[in-house]
Amino acid sequence: MPYELYYWPGIQGRGEFVRLALEEAGAEYVDVARGPHGVSAMMRLMESAARPSFAPPFLKDGETVVGQTAAILLYLGARHGLAPKDPEGGLWTHQIQLTIGDFVAEAHDTHHPIASGLYYEDQKEEALRRAEDFRTNRIPKYLGWFETILARNPHGDARLVGRALTYADLSLFQVVEGLSYAFPMAMRRALRNAPRVASLHAAVAARPRIAAYLASERRVPFNEEGIFRRYPELDG
Amino acid sequence: MPYELYYWPGIQGRGEFVRLALEEAGAEYVDVARGPHGVSAMMRLMESAARPSFAPPFLKDGETVVGQTAAILLYLGARHGLAPKDPEGGLWTHQIQLTIGDFVAEAHDTHHPIASGLYYEDQKEEALRRAEDFRTNRIPKYLGWFETILARNPHGDARLVGRALTYADLSLFQVVEGLSYAFPMAMRRALRNAPRVASLHAAVAARPRIAAYLASERRVPFNEEGIFRRYPELDG
Repeated sequence: MPYELYYWPGIQGRGEFVRLALEEAGAEYVDVARGPHGVSAMMRLMESAARPSFAPPFLKDGETVVGQTAAILLYLGARHGLAPKDPEGGLWTHQIQLTIGDFVAEAHDTHHPIASGLYYEDQKEEALRRAEDFRTNRIPKYLGWFETILARNPHGDARLVGRALTYADLSLFQVVEGLSYAFPMAMRRALRNAPRVASLHAAVAARPRIAAYLASERRVPFNEEGIFRRYPELDG
Repeated sequence: MPYELYYWPGIQGRGEFVRLALEEAGAEYVDVARGPHGVSAMMRLMESAARPSFAPPFLKDGETVVGQTAAILLYLGARHGLAPKDPEGGLWTHQIQLTIGDFVAEAHDTHHPIASGLYYEDQKEEALRRAEDFRTNRIPKYLGWFETILARNPHGDARLVGRALTYADLSLFQVVEGLSYAFPMAMRRALRNAPRVASLHAAVAARPRIAAYLASERRVPFNEEGIFRRYPELDG
Protein backbone atom coordinates (compact mmCIF):
# COMPACT_ATOMS: atom_id res chain seq x y z
CA MET A 1 0.00 0.00 0.00
CA PRO A 2 1.53 3.36 -0.97
CA TYR A 3 2.12 6.03 1.64
CA GLU A 4 -0.33 8.89 1.67
CA LEU A 5 1.25 12.31 2.09
CA TYR A 6 -1.04 15.15 3.13
CA TYR A 7 0.15 18.68 2.52
CA TRP A 8 -1.11 21.94 1.03
CA PRO A 9 -1.08 21.75 -2.76
CA GLY A 10 0.59 24.51 -4.73
CA ILE A 11 3.62 24.97 -2.50
CA GLN A 12 6.70 22.99 -1.55
CA GLY A 13 6.56 24.12 2.05
CA ARG A 14 7.37 21.68 4.82
CA GLY A 15 5.89 18.84 2.80
CA GLU A 16 8.90 19.04 0.50
CA PHE A 17 11.24 17.61 3.12
CA VAL A 18 9.04 14.53 3.24
CA ARG A 19 8.74 14.33 -0.56
CA LEU A 20 12.51 14.38 -0.98
CA ALA A 21 12.90 11.46 1.43
CA LEU A 22 10.15 9.48 -0.30
CA GLU A 23 11.65 10.18 -3.72
CA GLU A 24 15.20 9.27 -2.71
CA ALA A 25 13.89 6.07 -1.11
CA GLY A 26 11.98 5.20 -4.28
CA ALA A 27 8.91 4.73 -2.07
CA GLU A 28 5.45 4.68 -3.55
CA TYR A 29 3.30 7.53 -2.31
CA VAL A 30 0.21 9.50 -3.18
CA ASP A 31 0.33 13.28 -2.72
CA VAL A 32 -3.29 13.26 -1.63
CA ALA A 33 -4.13 16.96 -1.43
CA ARG A 34 -2.91 17.53 -4.99
CA GLY A 35 -5.52 15.08 -6.30
CA PRO A 36 -9.26 15.64 -6.79
CA HIS A 37 -11.03 16.54 -3.52
CA GLY A 38 -7.65 16.15 -1.88
CA VAL A 39 -7.81 19.22 0.31
CA SER A 40 -11.16 18.25 1.78
CA ALA A 41 -9.84 14.73 2.42
CA MET A 42 -6.90 16.33 4.23
CA MET A 43 -9.10 18.62 6.31
CA ARG A 44 -11.40 15.74 7.19
CA LEU A 45 -8.50 13.61 8.40
CA MET A 46 -7.09 16.52 10.38
CA GLU A 47 -10.47 17.03 12.03
CA SER A 48 -11.39 13.45 12.75
CA ALA A 49 -8.22 11.44 13.29
CA ALA A 50 -7.80 9.75 16.64
CA ARG A 51 -4.38 11.41 16.71
CA PRO A 52 -4.90 14.56 14.64
CA SER A 53 -1.93 16.61 13.53
CA PHE A 54 -1.81 20.27 14.50
CA ALA A 55 -0.97 21.15 10.90
CA PRO A 56 0.11 19.52 7.64
CA PRO A 57 2.29 17.77 6.60
CA PHE A 58 1.29 14.38 7.89
CA LEU A 59 1.87 10.93 6.51
CA LYS A 60 -0.48 7.98 6.54
CA ASP A 61 1.05 4.51 6.43
CA GLY A 62 -1.82 2.05 6.70
CA GLU A 63 -3.42 2.81 10.06
CA THR A 64 -0.50 4.89 11.30
CA VAL A 65 -0.70 8.67 10.94
CA VAL A 66 2.42 10.71 11.75
CA GLY A 67 2.61 14.49 11.77
CA GLN A 68 5.40 17.03 12.27
CA THR A 69 8.04 17.03 9.54
CA ALA A 70 10.91 15.87 11.74
CA ALA A 71 8.84 13.05 13.24
CA ILE A 72 7.79 11.89 9.76
CA LEU A 73 11.44 11.81 8.70
CA LEU A 74 12.40 9.93 11.86
CA TYR A 75 9.77 7.36 10.90
CA LEU A 76 10.76 7.15 7.22
CA GLY A 77 14.50 7.29 7.86
CA ALA A 78 14.45 4.10 9.89
CA ARG A 79 12.32 2.27 7.31
CA HIS A 80 14.23 3.26 4.19
CA GLY A 81 17.87 3.34 5.19
CA LEU A 82 17.95 7.14 5.29
CA ALA A 83 19.37 7.24 8.82
CA PRO A 84 22.10 5.29 10.61
CA LYS A 85 20.91 2.14 12.33
CA ASP A 86 22.79 2.77 15.56
CA PRO A 87 20.62 4.69 18.04
CA GLU A 88 23.19 7.39 18.65
CA GLY A 89 23.67 8.10 14.95
CA GLY A 90 19.91 8.09 14.47
CA LEU A 91 19.42 10.60 17.25
CA TRP A 92 22.19 12.86 15.91
CA THR A 93 20.56 12.81 12.47
CA HIS A 94 17.29 13.78 14.11
CA GLN A 95 18.97 16.55 16.09
CA ILE A 96 20.32 18.00 12.85
CA GLN A 97 16.87 17.79 11.29
CA LEU A 98 15.36 19.64 14.24
CA THR A 99 17.93 22.39 13.80
CA ILE A 100 17.07 22.58 10.10
CA GLY A 101 13.44 22.90 11.18
CA ASP A 102 14.32 25.87 13.36
CA PHE A 103 16.16 27.45 10.43
CA VAL A 104 13.13 26.91 8.17
CA ALA A 105 10.81 28.52 10.71
CA GLU A 106 13.08 31.56 10.85
CA ALA A 107 13.16 31.71 7.04
CA HIS A 108 9.36 31.73 7.02
CA ASP A 109 9.21 34.50 9.56
CA THR A 110 11.31 36.82 7.40
CA HIS A 111 8.17 37.51 5.35
CA HIS A 112 5.70 36.84 8.17
CA PRO A 113 7.26 38.32 11.31
CA ILE A 114 3.94 39.42 12.83
CA ALA A 115 1.28 36.83 11.95
CA SER A 116 0.98 33.96 9.51
CA GLY A 117 -2.68 34.89 9.14
CA LEU A 118 -1.85 38.34 7.69
CA TYR A 119 -0.65 39.14 4.19
CA TYR A 120 2.99 39.97 3.58
CA GLU A 121 1.94 43.45 2.50
CA ASP A 122 0.47 44.02 5.95
CA GLN A 123 3.77 43.29 7.70
CA LYS A 124 6.27 44.47 5.13
CA GLU A 125 7.99 47.08 7.30
CA GLU A 126 8.61 44.49 9.99
CA ALA A 127 9.70 41.98 7.35
CA LEU A 128 12.39 44.35 6.10
CA ARG A 129 13.88 44.53 9.58
CA ARG A 130 13.61 40.82 10.29
CA ALA A 131 15.06 39.82 6.91
CA GLU A 132 18.06 42.06 7.43
CA ASP A 133 18.89 40.31 10.69
CA PHE A 134 18.26 36.94 9.08
CA ARG A 135 20.66 37.68 6.21
CA THR A 136 23.32 39.26 8.39
CA ASN A 137 23.30 37.05 11.44
CA ARG A 138 21.18 33.94 11.12
CA ILE A 139 22.12 32.59 7.67
CA PRO A 140 25.87 32.78 8.42
CA LYS A 141 25.39 31.28 11.87
CA TYR A 142 23.38 28.29 10.63
CA LEU A 143 25.57 27.67 7.57
CA GLY A 144 28.63 27.92 9.78
CA TRP A 145 27.23 25.21 12.03
CA PHE A 146 26.47 22.90 9.10
CA GLU A 147 29.97 23.55 7.75
CA THR A 148 31.45 22.63 11.13
CA ILE A 149 29.56 19.39 11.51
CA LEU A 150 30.40 18.38 7.94
CA ALA A 151 34.07 19.07 8.66
CA ARG A 152 33.90 17.01 11.87
CA ASN A 153 32.18 13.98 10.39
CA PRO A 154 34.79 11.26 10.96
CA HIS A 155 33.57 9.50 7.80
CA GLY A 156 34.29 12.49 5.57
CA ASP A 157 32.84 15.88 4.86
CA ALA A 158 30.55 14.81 2.03
CA ARG A 159 27.77 13.83 4.43
CA LEU A 160 26.35 15.28 7.64
CA VAL A 161 26.28 11.92 9.41
CA GLY A 162 28.30 8.78 8.69
CA ARG A 163 29.22 7.57 5.24
CA ALA A 164 25.77 7.11 3.68
CA LEU A 165 23.19 9.66 2.68
CA THR A 166 20.61 10.53 5.35
CA TYR A 167 17.39 12.51 5.31
CA ALA A 168 19.31 15.34 6.99
CA ASP A 169 21.47 15.68 3.85
CA LEU A 170 18.31 15.88 1.73
CA SER A 171 16.84 18.49 4.05
CA LEU A 172 19.99 20.60 4.00
CA PHE A 173 19.88 20.48 0.19
CA GLN A 174 16.30 21.78 0.30
CA VAL A 175 17.10 24.63 2.68
CA VAL A 176 20.03 25.76 0.54
CA GLU A 177 17.86 25.49 -2.57
CA GLY A 178 15.03 27.44 -0.98
CA LEU A 179 17.20 30.15 0.50
CA SER A 180 19.08 30.52 -2.79
CA TYR A 181 15.71 31.16 -4.41
CA ALA A 182 14.59 33.62 -1.75
CA PHE A 183 17.86 35.41 -0.98
CA PRO A 184 20.10 34.92 -4.05
CA MET A 185 22.54 37.69 -3.16
CA ALA A 186 22.87 36.89 0.52
CA MET A 187 23.22 33.18 -0.16
CA ARG A 188 25.90 33.64 -2.80
CA ARG A 189 27.95 35.48 -0.19
CA ALA A 190 27.18 33.03 2.61
CA LEU A 191 27.99 29.91 0.59
CA ARG A 192 31.46 31.25 -0.16
CA ASN A 193 32.20 30.64 3.52
CA ALA A 194 30.51 27.25 3.52
CA PRO A 195 32.09 25.29 0.67
CA ARG A 196 31.19 21.91 2.15
CA VAL A 197 27.54 22.91 2.38
CA ALA A 198 27.67 24.06 -1.26
CA SER A 199 29.23 20.73 -2.33
CA LEU A 200 26.65 18.71 -0.45
CA HIS A 201 23.89 20.72 -2.09
CA ALA A 202 25.32 20.02 -5.55
CA ALA A 203 25.87 16.34 -4.80
CA VAL A 204 22.28 15.83 -3.64
CA ALA A 205 20.91 17.63 -6.71
CA ALA A 206 22.90 15.24 -8.91
CA ARG A 207 21.63 12.02 -7.35
CA PRO A 208 19.66 10.17 -10.05
CA ARG A 209 16.34 9.92 -8.20
CA ILE A 210 16.53 13.48 -6.91
CA ALA A 211 17.53 14.87 -10.31
CA ALA A 212 14.63 13.00 -11.93
CA TYR A 213 12.25 14.29 -9.28
CA LEU A 214 13.41 17.90 -9.59
CA ALA A 215 12.86 17.73 -13.36
CA SER A 216 9.39 16.20 -12.96
CA GLU A 217 5.99 17.78 -12.53
CA ARG A 218 5.85 16.35 -9.05
CA ARG A 219 8.22 19.13 -7.96
CA VAL A 220 6.12 22.24 -7.38
CA PRO A 221 8.10 25.31 -8.50
CA PHE A 222 9.07 27.83 -5.83
CA ASN A 223 6.56 30.64 -5.60
CA GLU A 224 5.45 33.50 -3.38
CA GLU A 225 2.96 31.41 -1.40
CA GLY A 226 5.48 29.07 0.17
CA ILE A 227 8.09 29.27 2.88
CA PHE A 228 10.86 30.49 0.58
CA ARG A 229 9.69 33.60 -1.28
CA ARG A 230 11.61 35.86 -3.59
CA TYR A 231 10.83 39.37 -2.47
CA PRO A 232 13.82 41.32 -3.83
CA GLU A 233 13.42 44.02 -1.18
CA LEU A 234 14.20 41.39 1.51
CA ASP A 235 17.49 40.34 -0.10
CA GLY A 236 20.64 42.44 -0.27
CA MET B 1 27.25 8.74 36.64
CA PRO B 2 24.80 11.64 36.81
CA TYR B 3 23.56 13.29 33.66
CA GLU B 4 25.08 16.65 32.84
CA LEU B 5 22.60 19.25 31.67
CA TYR B 6 23.99 22.29 29.88
CA TYR B 7 21.80 25.36 29.66
CA TRP B 8 22.01 29.11 30.27
CA PRO B 9 21.90 29.85 33.99
CA GLY B 10 19.44 32.41 35.28
CA ILE B 11 16.47 31.41 33.12
CA GLN B 12 14.14 28.44 32.80
CA GLY B 13 14.08 28.65 29.02
CA ARG B 14 14.11 25.48 26.95
CA GLY B 15 16.27 23.78 29.55
CA GLU B 16 13.27 23.65 31.86
CA PHE B 17 11.52 21.01 29.75
CA VAL B 18 14.52 18.77 30.30
CA ARG B 19 14.73 19.60 34.02
CA LEU B 20 11.10 18.66 34.55
CA ALA B 21 11.65 15.26 32.93
CA LEU B 22 14.80 14.63 34.99
CA GLU B 23 13.05 15.68 38.20
CA GLU B 24 9.96 13.56 37.58
CA ALA B 25 12.20 10.60 36.76
CA GLY B 26 14.16 11.11 39.97
CA ALA B 27 17.30 11.04 37.84
CA GLU B 28 20.58 12.35 39.14
CA TYR B 29 21.84 15.32 37.17
CA VAL B 30 24.19 18.25 37.42
CA ASP B 31 23.00 21.58 36.06
CA VAL B 32 26.50 22.36 34.86
CA ALA B 33 26.24 25.97 33.75
CA ARG B 34 24.79 27.00 37.11
CA GLY B 35 27.96 25.83 38.87
CA PRO B 36 31.34 27.54 39.06
CA HIS B 37 32.90 28.10 35.60
CA GLY B 38 29.85 26.35 34.24
CA VAL B 39 29.17 28.71 31.37
CA SER B 40 32.70 28.44 30.06
CA ALA B 41 32.51 24.64 30.33
CA MET B 42 29.29 24.82 28.30
CA MET B 43 30.81 27.08 25.66
CA ARG B 44 33.87 24.85 25.43
CA LEU B 45 31.76 21.75 24.88
CA MET B 46 29.65 23.57 22.29
CA GLU B 47 32.79 24.61 20.45
CA SER B 48 34.72 21.39 20.60
CA ALA B 49 32.30 18.47 20.68
CA ALA B 50 32.50 15.98 17.85
CA ARG B 51 28.76 16.51 17.51
CA PRO B 52 28.27 20.08 18.72
CA SER B 53 24.79 21.39 19.41
CA PHE B 54 23.65 24.50 17.59
CA ALA B 55 22.47 25.94 20.90
CA PRO B 56 21.79 24.90 24.50
CA PRO B 57 20.17 22.92 26.01
CA PHE B 58 22.15 19.76 25.55
CA LEU B 59 22.54 16.72 27.75
CA LYS B 60 25.64 14.66 28.35
CA ASP B 61 25.20 11.05 29.34
CA GLY B 62 28.67 9.53 29.57
CA GLU B 63 30.09 9.89 26.08
CA THR B 64 26.74 10.66 24.47
CA VAL B 65 25.82 14.30 23.91
CA VAL B 66 22.28 15.09 22.75
CA GLY B 67 20.99 18.53 21.82
CA GLN B 68 17.61 19.94 20.80
CA THR B 69 14.99 19.86 23.56
CA ALA B 70 12.67 17.42 21.80
CA ALA B 71 15.52 15.03 20.96
CA ILE B 72 16.73 15.11 24.57
CA LEU B 73 13.22 14.23 25.76
CA LEU B 74 12.97 11.45 23.19
CA TYR B 75 16.19 10.07 24.65
CA LEU B 76 15.18 10.46 28.31
CA GLY B 77 11.58 9.37 27.78
CA ALA B 78 12.63 5.93 26.59
CA ARG B 79 15.10 5.49 29.45
CA HIS B 80 12.87 6.62 32.31
CA GLY B 81 9.39 5.39 31.46
CA LEU B 82 8.21 8.85 30.45
CA ALA B 83 6.96 7.67 27.06
CA PRO B 84 5.00 4.63 25.89
CA LYS B 85 7.11 1.64 24.95
CA ASP B 86 5.24 0.89 21.72
CA PRO B 87 6.86 2.70 18.79
CA GLU B 88 3.65 4.33 17.62
CA GLY B 89 2.85 5.74 21.05
CA GLY B 90 6.44 6.92 21.38
CA LEU B 91 6.26 8.73 18.06
CA TRP B 92 2.90 10.33 18.91
CA THR B 93 4.35 11.59 22.20
CA HIS B 94 7.25 13.05 20.26
CA GLN B 95 4.91 14.64 17.71
CA ILE B 96 3.08 16.38 20.55
CA GLN B 97 6.40 17.56 21.99
CA LEU B 98 7.41 19.00 18.62
CA THR B 99 4.13 20.91 18.48
CA ILE B 100 4.77 22.22 21.99
CA GLY B 101 8.20 23.30 20.72
CA ASP B 102 6.57 25.29 17.92
CA PHE B 103 4.24 26.92 20.45
CA VAL B 104 7.21 27.84 22.66
CA ALA B 105 9.07 29.40 19.71
CA GLU B 106 6.02 31.52 18.93
CA ALA B 107 5.76 32.55 22.58
CA HIS B 108 9.38 33.67 22.47
CA ASP B 109 8.81 35.67 19.32
CA THR B 110 6.04 37.74 20.93
CA HIS B 111 8.77 39.77 22.64
CA HIS B 112 11.42 39.19 19.96
CA PRO B 113 9.63 39.36 16.61
CA ILE B 114 12.54 40.95 14.75
CA ALA B 115 15.79 39.55 16.13
CA SER B 116 16.84 37.56 19.18
CA GLY B 117 20.05 39.61 19.19
CA LEU B 118 18.21 42.90 19.79
CA TYR B 119 16.70 44.14 23.03
CA TYR B 120 12.95 43.98 23.55
CA GLU B 121 12.90 47.76 23.72
CA ASP B 122 14.27 47.89 20.18
CA GLN B 123 11.39 45.82 18.79
CA LYS B 124 8.56 46.82 21.09
CA GLU B 125 6.26 48.20 18.42
CA GLU B 126 6.51 44.99 16.45
CA ALA B 127 6.10 42.99 19.66
CA LEU B 128 2.78 44.71 20.39
CA ARG B 129 1.44 43.59 17.01
CA ARG B 130 2.78 40.06 17.21
CA ALA B 131 1.58 39.54 20.81
CA GLU B 132 -1.93 40.61 19.87
CA ASP B 133 -2.09 37.96 17.16
CA PHE B 134 -0.57 35.41 19.52
CA ARG B 135 -3.19 36.10 22.21
CA THR B 136 -6.12 36.28 19.81
CA ASN B 137 -5.33 33.48 17.39
CA ARG B 138 -2.44 31.30 18.38
CA ILE B 139 -3.06 30.61 22.08
CA PRO B 140 -6.68 29.54 21.45
CA LYS B 141 -5.64 27.42 18.46
CA TYR B 142 -2.91 25.55 20.32
CA LEU B 143 -4.92 25.09 23.52
CA GLY B 144 -7.85 23.90 21.41
CA TRP B 145 -5.63 21.24 19.85
CA PHE B 146 -4.36 20.04 23.23
CA GLU B 147 -7.93 19.95 24.51
CA THR B 148 -8.96 17.84 21.51
CA ILE B 149 -6.20 15.31 21.85
CA LEU B 150 -6.83 15.00 25.60
CA ALA B 151 -10.52 14.39 24.87
CA ARG B 152 -9.65 11.75 22.25
CA ASN B 153 -7.18 9.80 24.37
CA PRO B 154 -8.87 6.39 24.57
CA HIS B 155 -7.30 5.89 28.02
CA GLY B 156 -8.93 8.98 29.47
CA ASP B 157 -8.55 12.72 29.29
CA ALA B 158 -6.16 13.08 32.21
CA ARG B 159 -3.13 12.40 30.01
CA LEU B 160 -2.08 13.38 26.49
CA VAL B 161 -0.97 9.84 25.60
CA GLY B 162 -2.02 6.54 27.12
CA ARG B 163 -2.65 5.99 30.80
CA ALA B 164 0.71 6.93 32.30
CA LEU B 165 2.41 10.30 32.56
CA THR B 166 4.71 11.21 29.65
CA TYR B 167 7.22 13.98 29.09
CA ALA B 168 4.61 15.63 26.85
CA ASP B 169 2.34 16.08 29.89
CA LEU B 170 5.23 17.69 31.77
CA SER B 171 5.95 19.98 28.84
CA LEU B 172 2.33 21.03 28.49
CA PHE B 173 2.34 21.86 32.20
CA GLN B 174 5.38 24.07 31.65
CA VAL B 175 3.87 25.90 28.66
CA VAL B 176 0.68 26.63 30.59
CA GLU B 177 2.71 27.76 33.59
CA GLY B 178 4.92 29.99 31.46
CA LEU B 179 2.11 31.53 29.45
CA SER B 180 0.09 32.12 32.62
CA TYR B 181 3.06 34.08 33.91
CA ALA B 182 3.51 36.04 30.68
CA PHE B 183 -0.10 36.55 29.63
CA PRO B 184 -2.20 36.19 32.81
CA MET B 185 -5.31 37.84 31.36
CA ALA B 186 -5.26 36.11 28.00
CA MET B 187 -4.56 32.73 29.58
CA ARG B 188 -7.36 33.04 32.12
CA ARG B 189 -9.75 33.50 29.22
CA ALA B 190 -8.21 30.77 27.07
CA LEU B 191 -8.14 28.14 29.82
CA ARG B 192 -11.88 28.56 30.35
CA ASN B 193 -12.29 26.88 26.96
CA ALA B 194 -9.67 24.25 27.71
CA PRO B 195 -10.73 22.67 31.02
CA ARG B 196 -8.82 19.43 30.36
CA VAL B 197 -5.62 21.37 29.78
CA ALA B 198 -6.22 23.27 33.02
CA SER B 199 -6.77 20.01 34.93
CA LEU B 200 -3.65 18.42 33.51
CA HIS B 201 -1.65 21.50 34.50
CA ALA B 202 -2.95 21.27 38.08
CA ALA B 203 -2.37 17.52 38.26
CA VAL B 204 1.24 17.80 37.14
CA ALA B 205 1.92 20.62 39.61
CA ALA B 206 0.64 18.38 42.42
CA ARG B 207 2.85 15.38 41.65
CA PRO B 208 5.15 14.90 44.63
CA ARG B 209 8.46 15.18 42.77
CA ILE B 210 7.30 18.10 40.67
CA ALA B 211 5.83 19.93 43.66
CA ALA B 212 9.08 19.43 45.58
CA TYR B 213 11.07 20.66 42.62
CA LEU B 214 8.91 23.74 42.08
CA ALA B 215 9.35 24.66 45.74
CA SER B 216 13.13 24.16 45.61
CA GLU B 217 15.93 26.50 44.68
CA ARG B 218 16.61 24.37 41.64
CA ARG B 219 13.58 25.98 40.01
CA VAL B 220 14.69 29.33 38.59
CA PRO B 221 11.88 31.88 39.00
CA PHE B 222 10.30 33.27 35.84
CA ASN B 223 11.90 36.54 34.84
CA GLU B 224 12.21 38.97 31.96
CA GLU B 225 15.29 37.29 30.48
CA GLY B 226 13.62 34.00 29.59
CA ILE B 227 11.14 32.77 27.01
CA PHE B 228 8.06 33.65 29.06
CA ARG B 229 8.21 37.32 30.07
CA ARG B 230 5.63 39.42 31.84
CA TYR B 231 5.40 42.62 29.86
CA PRO B 232 1.93 43.89 30.80
CA GLU B 233 1.64 45.84 27.55
CA LEU B 234 1.74 42.55 25.63
CA ASP B 235 -1.16 41.02 27.58
CA GLY B 236 -4.77 42.08 27.31
